[in-house]
Amino acid sequence: MPPIAPRIAEMNAGGSDGWEVFYRARAMAASGLPVTELTIGEHDIRTDPAILHAMHASAMGGHTGYAAVPGTPELRAAIAERVQARTGIATGPDNVLVTPGAQAALFAAHMLACPPGAAALYVDPCYTTYPGTIRAASARAVPVATRPEAGFLPDADALEAAAAQTGARSLLVNTPNNPTGAVYPRATLMGIARVARACDLWLISDEVYEGQVWQGTHLSPRALPGMSERTLVIGSMSKGHAMTGARLGWIVGPEAAVAHLIDLATVTTYGVPGFIQDAALFALREGPAHEAQVAAPFARRRRIAEAVLRDAPGLRLLPAEGAMYLMLDIRATGLSGAAFAQGLLETQRIAVMPGESFGRAAAGHVRVAMTVPDAAFEDALRRLASFAADRSTRAARA
Amino acid sequence: MPPIAPRIAEMNAGGSDGWEVFYRARAMAASGLPVTELTIGEHDIRTDPAILHAMHASAMGGHTGYAAVPGTPELRAAIAERVQARTGIATGPDNVLVTPGAQAALFAAHMLACPPGAAALYVDPCYTTYPGTIRAASARAVPVATRPEAGFLPDADALEAAAAQTGARSLLVNTPNNPTGAVYPRATLMGIARVARACDLWLISDEVYEGQVWQGTHLSPRALPGMSERTLVIGSMSKGHAMTGARLGWIVGPEAAVAHLIDLATVTTYGVPGFIQDAALFALREGPAHEAQVAAPFARRRRIAEAVLRDAPGLRLLPAEGAMYLMLDIRATGLSGAAFAQGLLETQRIAVMPGESFGRAAAGHVRVAMTVPDAAFEDALRRLASFAADRSTRAARA
Repeated sequence: MPPIAPRIAEMNAGGSDGWEVFYRARAMAASGLPVTELTIGEHDIRTDPAILHAMHASAMGGHTGYAAVPGTPELRAAIAERVQARTGIATGPDNVLVTPGAQAALFAAHMLACPPGAAALYVDPCYTTYPGTIRAASARAVPVATRPEAGFLPDADALEAAAAQTGARSLLVNTPNNPTGAVYPRATLMGIARVARACDLWLISDEVYEGQVWQGTHLSPRALPGMSERTLVIGSMSKGHAMTGARLGWIVGPEAAVAHLIDLATVTTYGVPGFIQDAALFALREGPAHEAQVAAPFARRRRIAEAVLRDAPGLRLLPAEGAMYLMLDIRATGLSGAAFAQGLLETQRIAVMPGESFGRAAAGHVRVAMTVPDAAFEDALRRLASFAADRSTRAARA
Repeated sequence: MPPIAPRIAEMNAGGSDGWEVFYRARAMAASGLPVTELTIGEHDIRTDPAILHAMHASAMGGHTGYAAVPGTPELRAAIAERVQARTGIATGPDNVLVTPGAQAALFAAHMLACPPGAAALYVDPCYTTYPGTIRAASARAVPVATRPEAGFLPDADALEAAAAQTGARSLLVNTPNNPTGAVYPRATLMGIARVARACDLWLISDEVYEGQVWQGTHLSPRALPGMSERTLVIGSMSKGHAMTGARLGWIVGPEAAVAHLIDLATVTTYGVPGFIQDAALFALREGPAHEAQVAAPFARRRRIAEAVLRDAPGLRLLPAEGAMYLMLDIRATGLSGAAFAQGLLETQRIAVMPGESFGRAAAGHVRVAMTVPDAAFEDALRRLASFAADRSTRAARA
């Protein structure tokens, strides 16, 4: 076999990524063992049948040929309207590229921002694909650590130092945040914007959880002064509309950048199925009530978690302000996130993600996805709390 | 706006690509003028409703969450079986990655084969996205010219010289060929295989028209001795099953390469909609009769073209052995391909693609897509022949 390009061969270099627990849990479940999976960000509901009927109608109506590569005019307009209504920033169809999912949008944004070898900053901890996405774009993935004591919010001075030291071309942020549940406050975003302007960075703003905010307000950094010309907003139908499997996302950015992104899409994806775009258009037109309905279980389960885990010995629930996850500080147990998750799976058959899966900054933490029905969720949390209490007692004795 | 990475900013450098005729035709049609469009490779039929019903059943059955990133086990197995049955080469599910279309597969294959800056060879003329796809992968697109007098078949010595001179890491070939209609004979493929082995190249073999062969036999170079370990075959549901808009393709290659391609897919696309994969599985299980039905109109129209264009003054129909296109040598008219196409559009309202759109080697030619109903197709060819005869008479007088 001829050699494989290092950007791919070495993409996952750096050893274990903590996904062993996830795969072990899947294997246990497949072998018939009852496992409560609180791992990945997949809803416990399916896509609304009304959306699927709209998709079928589009396909049967003949929208089965090549769709326009940038996206259908109707969907681009609907996304632009949505963004403008939410941010107050002038946004038209030419500011929008429809992509086959937000993951493809994240990749395309880095392809645009970073020449091969350039540094691309991201905030640690982060969604697990970020470093690999940057490396696939032949760029250098540079984490900027945050601290649990600061609510995992990035510090502007640390970002600026990293940008200056590496000559970075881009900065990737995510609010509401996966895995930490943080919703970045205005002051944090103002600091991020200042650094992006000072260091002439592209700001790549992953806002796929924009509709899932339990505390505070989602603010898109594209709306801050001088930022619409250097911000690429990543959005998606996956989380807000329970359409993960439809693989439909978008990038909103300056028209000139979107024109280049269309060139890129022409040679890397050649667009998104027209019938899926029509389904997304239908879903967007259903309005905020539908999104609220998809988000409601997470809001409920977050309240359950706050009640169950308040004052639980051995763990600390970080402020769960948005997205589908809870971050638990379990350092008082004396265990690493990976050891905690492993022990919880083996003894309680509950699967959570080790913090280490999301970067070094989340060591000593675990992420809990709020993706099982309320009663099962509450039961799992009680058993998780009991496991943590037991381990922290042992740690105190040792 | 911060700078845009040169790989994208300069992707389409090199001036006009001959697509003006296409856009002009679309604009004329949009303004209500009757234009016969023989430009892009889009069927004049829609996707079979039975396939769309299978897709709807899958979606309504709940296959709307994340599908496995490499593809569903069932679809990977079905593609592997198909490839093994057609080539006799051992092929299992782990040799297959399902991609969101063949364009994404072409890009992923070059991402795997070529580090940034490496040379990637392709045969000129070619499908229009090839050079951009290679450039997007941060590689250097190196055309190897073919000659109409040689039926646009690549010459092994020319390929070897180009590989040696540039240190190329990959060679992209396409049979049945778009735009030339050539089906590479065994001797040509043996030469290609020899060069790939001698120069340790990845052979990227675009076989999306494998089911549309009118003369000769399609041979996959992966089946040649020593080639399965260095060949990445690109396939798709688009052309053979009239599913262009579904964006479903695949790569077949060595298991170790596919494992790396799955890593790449995880961070660049995160898989393909499960309900589309189920639709593709249904379509593949419909067997060869369905593919024959999709291909039949092109076979009929090719015979019409041979009858109409035989002995037509001013043009020469190249052997139309496969795919959905005819290549016409119109050098006797004294016009460039672009000028011919422009004149034909303005005077006859027939849109064809200038050969120049597909590379310098196709200058003085036009490509005719066989994508309108038979009667309209025959009428358009008669008027095209009349236009060519008129222009060649003028050229002879001048």
